[in-house]
Amino acid sequence: MAINIILAGPRGRMGSEAVNMVLNEPDFKLVACIDRKHDGEQLTDIQGLPNKDVPIFKEIEECFQQVNADVFIDLTIPEVGYYHTKTAMENNIRPVVGTTGFTDEQIVELSQLAQTKKTGCIIAPNFAVGAVLMMKFSEMAAKYFSDVEIIEKHHDRKLDAPSGTAKKTAELIRNTREAKKQGHPDETETIRGARGAELDGMRIHSVRLPGLVAHQEVLFGSSGQTLSIKHDSLNRESFMEGIKLSVYKVMEMDELTYGLENIL
Amino acid sequence: MAINIILAGPRGRMGSEAVNMVLNEPDFKLVACIDRKHDGEQLTDIQGLPNKDVPIFKEIEECFQQVNADVFIDLTIPEVGYYHTKTAMENNIRPVVGTTGFTDEQIVELSQLAQTKKTGCIIAPNFAVGAVLMMKFSEMAAKYFSDVEIIEKHHDRKLDAPSGTAKKTAELIRNTREAKKQGHPDETETIRGARGAELDGMRIHSVRLPGLVAHQEVLFGSSGQTLSIKHDSLNRESFMEGIKLSVYKVMEMDELTYGLENIL
Amino acid sequence: MAINIILAGPRGRMGSEAVNMVLNEPDFKLVACIDRKHDGEQLTDIQGLPNKDVPIFKEIEECFQQVNADVFIDLTIPEVGYYHTKTAMENNIRPVVGTTGFTDEQIVELSQLAQTKKTGCIIAPNFAVGAVLMMKFSEMAAKYFSDVEIIEKHHDRKLDAPSGTAKKTAELIRNTREAKKQGHPDETETIRGARGAELDGMRIHSVRLPGLVAHQEVLFGSSGQTLSIKHDSLNRESFMEGIKLSVYKVMEMDELTYGLENIL
Amino acid sequence: MAINIILAGPRGRMGSEAVNMVLNEPDFKLVACIDRKHDGEQLTDIQGLPNKDVPIFKEIEECFQQVNADVFIDLTIPEVGYYHTKTAMENNIRPVVGTTGFTDEQIVELSQLAQTKKTGCIIAPNFAVGAVLMMKFSEMAAKYFSDVEIIEKHHDRKLDAPSGTAKKTAELIRNTREAKKQGHPDETETIRGARGAELDGMRIHSVRLPGLVAHQEVLFGSSGQTLSIKHDSLNRESFMEGIKLSVYKVMEMDELTYGLENIL
Repeated sequence: MAINIILAGPRGRMGSEAVNMVLNEPDFKLVACIDRKHDGEQLTDIQGLPNKDVPIFKEIEECFQQVNADVFIDLTIPEVGYYHTKTAMENNIRPVVGTTGFTDEQIVELSQLAQTKKTGCIIAPNFAVGAVLMMKFSEMAAKYFSDVEIIEKHHDRKLDAPSGTAKKTAELIRNTREAKKQGHPDETETIRGARGAELDGMRIHSVRLPGLVAHQEVLFGSSGQTLSIKHDSLNRESFMEGIKLSVYKVMEMDELTYGLENIL
Repeated sequence: MAINIILAGPRGRMGSEAVNMVLNEPDFKLVACIDRKHDGEQLTDIQGLPNKDVPIFKEIEECFQQVNADVFIDLTIPEVGYYHTKTAMENNIRPVVGTTGFTDEQIVELSQLAQTKKTGCIIAPNFAVGAVLMMKFSEMAAKYFSDVEIIEKHHDRKLDAPSGTAKKTAELIRNTREAKKQGHPDETETIRGARGAELDGMRIHSVRLPGLVAHQEVLFGSSGQTLSIKHDSLNRESFMEGIKLSVYKVMEMDELTYGLENIL
Repeated sequence: MAINIILAGPRGRMGSEAVNMVLNEPDFKLVACIDRKHDGEQLTDIQGLPNKDVPIFKEIEECFQQVNADVFIDLTIPEVGYYHTKTAMENNIRPVVGTTGFTDEQIVELSQLAQTKKTGCIIAPNFAVGAVLMMKFSEMAAKYFSDVEIIEKHHDRKLDAPSGTAKKTAELIRNTREAKKQGHPDETETIRGARGAELDGMRIHSVRLPGLVAHQEVLFGSSGQTLSIKHDSLNRESFMEGIKLSVYKVMEMDELTYGLENIL
Repeated sequence: MAINIILAGPRGRMGSEAVNMVLNEPDFKLVACIDRKHDGEQLTDIQGLPNKDVPIFKEIEECFQQVNADVFIDLTIPEVGYYHTKTAMENNIRPVVGTTGFTDEQIVELSQLAQTKKTGCIIAPNFAVGAVLMMKFSEMAAKYFSDVEIIEKHHDRKLDAPSGTAKKTAELIRNTREAKKQGHPDETETIRGARGAELDGMRIHSVRLPGLVAHQEVLFGSSGQTLSIKHDSLNRESFMEGIKLSVYKVMEMDELTYGLENIL
């Protein structure tokens, strides 16, 4: 039996990929979309989106009243997404939400609502299964390897260094790694910055070059061996597997989960 | 309080490294060695071994009668090792054994003995923590990535291809991976062998070059992303971490465990 | 002073990228295009191409009569491209041609024409500067390293293995490498194909996975060291640097050159 | 016909490897060694060296008077090596010298002596053929790729960062690379050092971990592609190929060459 899905944000970069993913997965059925600009139209009326008759609503309440659904995928912005997610659960529709923008208070509140309503809900800052596994494995490996450096590589239009994923990885590693200042105690930089950014004794190196997309290697070393865990991301398609998996998982859940790592 | 250790096989390549490891670990104390050639001598009498007064016995029973120990490390050959392991447990000494050579029957028998005696015992075919984690992570990742190829690289004096580790990794991956014939259904090799060895639809590639030691990469791919798990082994030191870890773990166990992966 | 350029094949995948490259390079001026379908129109009339007034001609002779140009870029098919290239040189316009499809006779004939007319002409099967350097460096390194394996990785929709680039690289390496059967003389494959495709004693391994694009590593080994030369190609943009470079180079040449490697 | 070789510094780490290399190369003959501690003895008298009757001299003049040689390999320290090299050429013996320690004046003087005597002489700071090719290829590639970062990885007992090889590579790249400040003009480090050491707009990253030996990757990027040149050094054996090659080359030369790159 098909899983009926309502998707909010079909024109966004993630959203338009997700529309395609839902339409191509045999067990999924796209029953409606939420879009503030195309109320009353059909998916086929929006330029660049697939030629399908799927109704579009501006107001989420109206959508939930008129259309029956099992899962609600939200790929909008946090300001709207929070209200969407709450309303979906109040209507007994399971949310799958891609955002980094909810506050801790909002997540606690949504979590309590999920418990009251006994409704599954997945909120994930990162749907790339490979990236999430890289972080999970790194956290596991750090228990046995206290020496680790992170090398992340991105295109040269990226503004911040290190990347958010590198910092998140280092924080996860910190949970399990025996605290340690790495490198030779007397090491010196003859050019400043050579040894990279320090985070809790670990080192992070940020490479920026045209021709790169988004890559990260976590390199562990101990006497006589190294272990490397590496993720290369080419494009937004890499997130679709995680959304797909979340839709299947949320159908079997009766509470809120934050982070893809907790359902892998 | 120190852990008292008896070590069998101090002259072997693994054994001599292990002697050094035990002597250098502050919480370990080497109280005796088993060696068929140097009965009654001291460690310092054997050329190439550390200059320490540690008694050497030929017969394991005699050793166990005269010396109190907590852990027995066996790095001999399977023919001798089985009897050693059994005798150690009968004397309430916890064995840590590095071998691939025990038969299934022997392992079952030793396991029953461990249960009867409520004695910890660890038998491991591979003590390289990094290699074991690589295999474990690969098995976990294959649940989400059904496309995977293994590229193993060794020095050009290696006789067999693929390596034992590559085959073992593929077998573990098979436990979790959705069965699938990989590559394009119509792909053709214009030179035979280009696509590597096939094992259950997966592909294994064996590179052999001077200047290499022992390396393996497990490469997973799905739309828009790849995940790579790689282990590089430089020398036998890489096994010492696993032996050290096993000694600590076996002290807390009251049954037999086969494979380092089950204590990580 | 600007270099005036006529481009044939503006609607193709390479051609449309090249249109953008020419328009964005300050020293280049796109003065006309050749396209069999849009005779008499302007570039702006073709859907998907930039909104610029550049005249389009069906017939190359008519174009050359009406428009003055320095360089002619041909990104059509070999059947048409040969005639285009010849006609361009007869009109004293320097051709830059991307094709693998000319016969040896055609290249000899075009080469003689270039000499007679003292006109530069560049014909290149591959405009990716990185790939061409990878091959050139491999040929140079093979003089000092007679042990080499090629590992090429592509998406899993690729039909043939090994790739054309891998075979071409092996052939170039053969020019300088001391002939040798690699690996242990007694090595055996316990699963057929593990050691890859053999070409003159070298080995080529073809990895095919979703999430990959086009990658090749040439790995050399000798006692105690390895040298690796690796090219990763993400998309067609990688060819634009080579075309741009060729336009500048062809302006200074007075004969035909085949292969980007000969102008690098 | 064999090449007769005198070797200075047979007890050093490089020297003892070189003794073995010379003894194992069929066309080489070790006719004497220079060692300040074992005057009048034979090679076989020195512990740890091969069991061969090769005379040892303390004084180089005495050695050159008593023993005929074609090539003189110096693997001592610069203070001694300069005098050795000069004396060898005065005796018409071709020097192959591994040192980074000669002053510019010394090299000029030795170069003039080589010209006067029409004697070949090779002085090289690095005999690892792979490392020298990596630098040479990087210098060549930088002509076409102005964006480049160097990632060098060493064991965690190394004191200085970046490595000498990384700095030398960057200086060579500077010869051919179009000057450029890399990365996004507005990029910021949220943890200091993330973007590595800056040298002329390029970036160098130094990784230090147990389990590593000596590795360097030079990574070039441009639109849609990356090119990577990587050298991994396992042990001192990697220098022997370069010394061997230098002995053959110096036999054909009649002047001084500084740097292995100039004979490759």
